[in-house]
Amino acid sequence: MTTPSDFTPACPIPISDYPQVLLAHGGGGKLMHQLIEKMFGPAFKNPLLDQQHDGATLEINGAKLAFTTDSHVVHPLFFPGGDIGDLAVNGAVNDLAMCGARPLYLSAGFILEEGLPMNSLWRVVRSMQRAAAAAGVQFVTGDTKVVDRGKGDGIFINTAGIGVVEHNLTISPKAVRPGDAVLLNGDIGRHGIAIMAVREGLEFESAIESDTAPLNDVVLKLIAAGIEIHCLRDITRGGIASTFNEIASASGVNVAMDESAIPVREDVRGACEILGFDPLYVANEGRFAAFVAAKDAERALAILRAHPLGKEAAIIGTVTADPAGLVTMKSRIGATRIVDMLSGEQLPRIC
Amino acid sequence: MTTPSDFTPACPIPISDYPQVLLAHGGGGKLMHQLIEKMFGPAFKNPLLDQQHDGATLEINGAKLAFTTDSHVVHPLFFPGGDIGDLAVNGAVNDLAMCGARPLYLSAGFILEEGLPMNSLWRVVRSMQRAAAAAGVQFVTGDTKVVDRGKGDGIFINTAGIGVVEHNLTISPKAVRPGDAVLLNGDIGRHGIAIMAVREGLEFESAIESDTAPLNDVVLKLIAAGIEIHCLRDITRGGIASTFNEIASASGVNVAMDESAIPVREDVRGACEILGFDPLYVANEGRFAAFVAAKDAERALAILRAHPLGKEAAIIGTVTADPAGLVTMKSRIGATRIVDMLSGEQLPRIC
Repeated sequence: MTTPSDFTPACPIPISDYPQVLLAHGGGGKLMHQLIEKMFGPAFKNPLLDQQHDGATLEINGAKLAFTTDSHVVHPLFFPGGDIGDLAVNGAVNDLAMCGARPLYLSAGFILEEGLPMNSLWRVVRSMQRAAAAAGVQFVTGDTKVVDRGKGDGIFINTAGIGVVEHNLTISPKAVRPGDAVLLNGDIGRHGIAIMAVREGLEFESAIESDTAPLNDVVLKLIAAGIEIHCLRDITRGGIASTFNEIASASGVNVAMDESAIPVREDVRGACEILGFDPLYVANEGRFAAFVAAKDAERALAILRAHPLGKEAAIIGTVTADPAGLVTMKSRIGATRIVDMLSGEQLPRIC
Repeated sequence: MTTPSDFTPACPIPISDYPQVLLAHGGGGKLMHQLIEKMFGPAFKNPLLDQQHDGATLEINGAKLAFTTDSHVVHPLFFPGGDIGDLAVNGAVNDLAMCGARPLYLSAGFILEEGLPMNSLWRVVRSMQRAAAAAGVQFVTGDTKVVDRGKGDGIFINTAGIGVVEHNLTISPKAVRPGDAVLLNGDIGRHGIAIMAVREGLEFESAIESDTAPLNDVVLKLIAAGIEIHCLRDITRGGIASTFNEIASASGVNVAMDESAIPVREDVRGACEILGFDPLYVANEGRFAAFVAAKDAERALAILRAHPLGKEAAIIGTVTADPAGLVTMKSRIGATRIVDMLSGEQLPRIC
């Protein structure tokens, strides 16, 4: 058995600061990025991993592929608008779509907790089946583990996915450049609020449902139309604030948002106020941002709005050179402020 | 929110028999196979999944690929001879190798429990780094989730993998036929016993170490030599008894083992007696069976024995037509008995 003393290099996360893993290390904010940048990134360093994308794009024997993985630990398992099953399918599908790939094949890795009602597993499996059919993907391989009662939480699902890249665009956070238009395919905040409302026992006049949806079809329509896409990102953990900070940081540009252009439903805004959240930081599961060349912005917007998953699409900002690496937002009254990455965990186990 | 009543088809596992998921549903034995055959298989049915292999083999734009996934929940995280990190790497590498593929790219999906010592995570990451380098694979995409204290167990790791298939063999449980020789690359039972010894606090004269190892190199040497391979299987959960039962069932043949030819180390045999286990059912993480045409058996054996991971290799049986679908074993005193699949959970959370 190896002992810690066998390891010459010290832990790259200062143990004095973080002796233990915190919930925030999985929250999509600063601590998670520190873990990725200081520990995982250097340990597994290679050019493909350095793409800093939702998935890796690879070439094998002439075939251009995208490859992605996501583990899903959402709590509760069932929530308004979806469950862990469709979330797991759409999560993998959307990561592949954000590479501009056509999703083809998924794997499913189940970690079940002893004592899980068999019917709950069946509900989730049925939900995965329907979501896979809706997205046009197939589960081709899988694995099941069961852990003792109290060592898991019902169901955790990992989905990895393979897609095929059939275009010649360079879609990457590093390809974003000043002048790009920033488009969003709809209103933000619904998934996170749907989950938190169940957890907190909040009831609204009409239920706020998760926006979970497969984004491959709408993305492939943008590509098919020849839109000059520079970057695509689904807006999940950490919300648009964290997503845009990642992109601003990767490409050394400023993502300048216009608050009045960002669609937020009134009931979601109200729920955010009650719960003390800022919609900019709330997770979505059917929303993505497209960074496109300015010349194509209006055409891209029209394509999004013509799609069932883009009816509320909007151009919510532009990319500028300065202040480099930052996200800014012009408020409704005209003041501009810096929108930072979330430092901790706003909504744990949201996906 | 959908309710169970929305689901027309009843749960395909009889709820009256199994109202809840049991540890045995993840143990590699009968209950796990029932779950796969009755629930996952029909729900996700497609020709690629029907291959019933350790991974799926696919063709994308002319490239022949293998794709696999495994979640790792081994307890304890560190054990003699390895830890969850190298197990997760070797698990994916070996599943791809069993498709006859050259493993190329892995994904890593971490589910961490809040409160995990940061140093433990670092040890595991370092171990994954070394194992990936040893197997010649790269981590190209990943995901990290953190669950609340008491809702996980330190670290769970999912690894999915992509490999490239560079041969024209049909390697599949269904390709096994009467007359095939059954080869094993070494002694069995070490991984399971290494884990159980730690859990039970047993001490032996010299520690029994896990056999965890990457099998891609030795498998590719068999393929490169032109051995007529019909099936490859790594011998993990459920041991050779469960693995051979799967193959006998898939191909409708009898796998006839010769007890005296199966290598088991004396200390492992002794530990099995103390712990009440049968080595035939104990998990391994660096052992595989090759079903090869009889004409190539001796040549395959020589190739295995020339490899560091095959020094103790042996021809441990043959395939016959009858009794179809069963595994039999000729004992040291000459009697033949049926070796059934494990019905329950012998060693939970062994990988």
